[in-house]
Amino acid sequence: MQKIVECVPNFSEGKDLAKIKKIFQAAGGVGSKTFGLEYNSDHNRMLFTIVGEPEHVLDSAFASIKIATKLIDMSKHVGQHPRIGATDVVPFVPVAGVSLRDCVLLSNKLAKKVAEELKIPVYLYEAAAKKPENKNLADIRKGEYEGLKIKMRKPDYGPAKIHPTAGAVVIGARKHLIAFNVNLDTPDVEIAKKIAGIIREKNGGLPGVKALGFKVDGLVQVSMNLVDFEKTNFDEAFREVEKLADKMNVKIKSSEIYGMVPLETLIRAIKTTFKAKEFNSGQVLEKRIYE
Amino acid sequence: MQKIVECVPNFSEGKDLAKIKKIFQAAGGVGSKTFGLEYNSDHNRMLFTIVGEPEHVLDSAFASIKIATKLIDMSKHVGQHPRIGATDVVPFVPVAGVSLRDCVLLSNKLAKKVAEELKIPVYLYEAAAKKPENKNLADIRKGEYEGLKIKMRKPDYGPAKIHPTAGAVVIGARKHLIAFNVNLDTPDVEIAKKIAGIIREKNGGLPGVKALGFKVDGLVQVSMNLVDFEKTNFDEAFREVEKLADKMNVKIKSSEIYGMVPLETLIRAIKTTFKAKEFNSGQVLEKRIYE
Repeated sequence: MQKIVECVPNFSEGKDLAKIKKIFQAAGGVGSKTFGLEYNSDHNRMLFTIVGEPEHVLDSAFASIKIATKLIDMSKHVGQHPRIGATDVVPFVPVAGVSLRDCVLLSNKLAKKVAEELKIPVYLYEAAAKKPENKNLADIRKGEYEGLKIKMRKPDYGPAKIHPTAGAVVIGARKHLIAFNVNLDTPDVEIAKKIAGIIREKNGGLPGVKALGFKVDGLVQVSMNLVDFEKTNFDEAFREVEKLADKMNVKIKSSEIYGMVPLETLIRAIKTTFKAKEFNSGQVLEKRIYE
Repeated sequence: MQKIVECVPNFSEGKDLAKIKKIFQAAGGVGSKTFGLEYNSDHNRMLFTIVGEPEHVLDSAFASIKIATKLIDMSKHVGQHPRIGATDVVPFVPVAGVSLRDCVLLSNKLAKKVAEELKIPVYLYEAAAKKPENKNLADIRKGEYEGLKIKMRKPDYGPAKIHPTAGAVVIGARKHLIAFNVNLDTPDVEIAKKIAGIIREKNGGLPGVKALGFKVDGLVQVSMNLVDFEKTNFDEAFREVEKLADKMNVKIKSSEIYGMVPLETLIRAIKTTFKAKEFNSGQVLEKRIYE
């Protein structure tokens, strides 16, 4: 079986199309596929997906990090989304023929390369974390780029001092994450914040759900990261947000599934929503071709 | 985007395992996948599914038609299911990146090849029909093989006289049909029949929906064929049944999606159900890796 890894690097550039294009195109190497470029000017942030064999994906990720380091100046960066670096976070995700452990090894390899060749401090997070306090991305990003310039914890690789323009990078390994936003039919961002507060796992909400309330492009949204769709899938998160919004007499306007998802998330959503217990991915025509 | 077509050829052989195997295996060519072989000795009939790129699927279908022409003698064929030929009917179905119109062109290409190389008369049906009286398969098959030997309408391709052992072939294009059942939490089959009567297109219900109320294995179900999921998809049918059942104080127990479905049906169901207008099949990881 072919070894396939997914990598979803996030960079702090969501406005300058020429720069966005350069960073994205730099990742297009032999033996890996890059796609799913998304960017948002309010967040001032971009992300895309790389898939392929582990070593090729590592090379592709490094190439885009190198360009982002040249093009992005964090001392001038403004955006709504928390971030600590030009290359903000680089997760490796097992897709086929590789374990989460393999992705941890790959994270260490990339971290070493970024630290040595680009002189940027690197923190390892999630399954790759070397310290419990680095497991959670939000904890590493606390204080953001500006805060790290003043006081910085010791990184896992690289210099103990923040890179003046590139900041620091978070690299790690995790399961596939679903970025899911639910937009509310209200101008009141406090309602989104309240719902986000209730549903996030940290506050005793839904397992594997991280949530924030935002106002983006005039939309009031509950912005979620579903870190384990086998525990809480996007359809379940949607219904929970809908239920909570309903209590405040607010309707759902729309939702957004951001970036790539494994087919299994769709299958699970359909099984649960339509009580179709027997439905499975073997019934999807395209899958017969790809398998 | 990769072009994918589905083809479900039906042959008049459901008893001789050696012949069934030969016809099925003949379709297994480069660039297409064959699966879902079904046969029934009472019907004396077999069918299977071919998926892949249009030209490859055409080649696979032709290879199995050629073998079936050699192996099956219609003058000795006995079976419960209506049929006019050794290869009885060959529908092409758009799956991804192709239109129904593309499948009509493909039908004509295969029909020409079958007529010229195998000397079998071919009728084009459904979306490929050249005459209104050939649109419906049942109308073409009226009188069956035996009837056509006596009196035969002019075919769309090939000789005006029936092939002595292979009969005639019906080739055409149609949309993918979804077999979808919704099981009601009631022992009263009349409720299922009532709902089926309301939602079926013929009575002014949902477009492209054929529906019957049944009691099967102790389950009261609204059994539907969705002949055009772009007009009414399974999620819409589900909600309509749920709404009607609710008026009669009956809950939905479960649902069943039968057989194969194009990925697009799942994408559409998710877009509609979760108001995720921008969601698309390009976001499905498995699809992107292999295309």
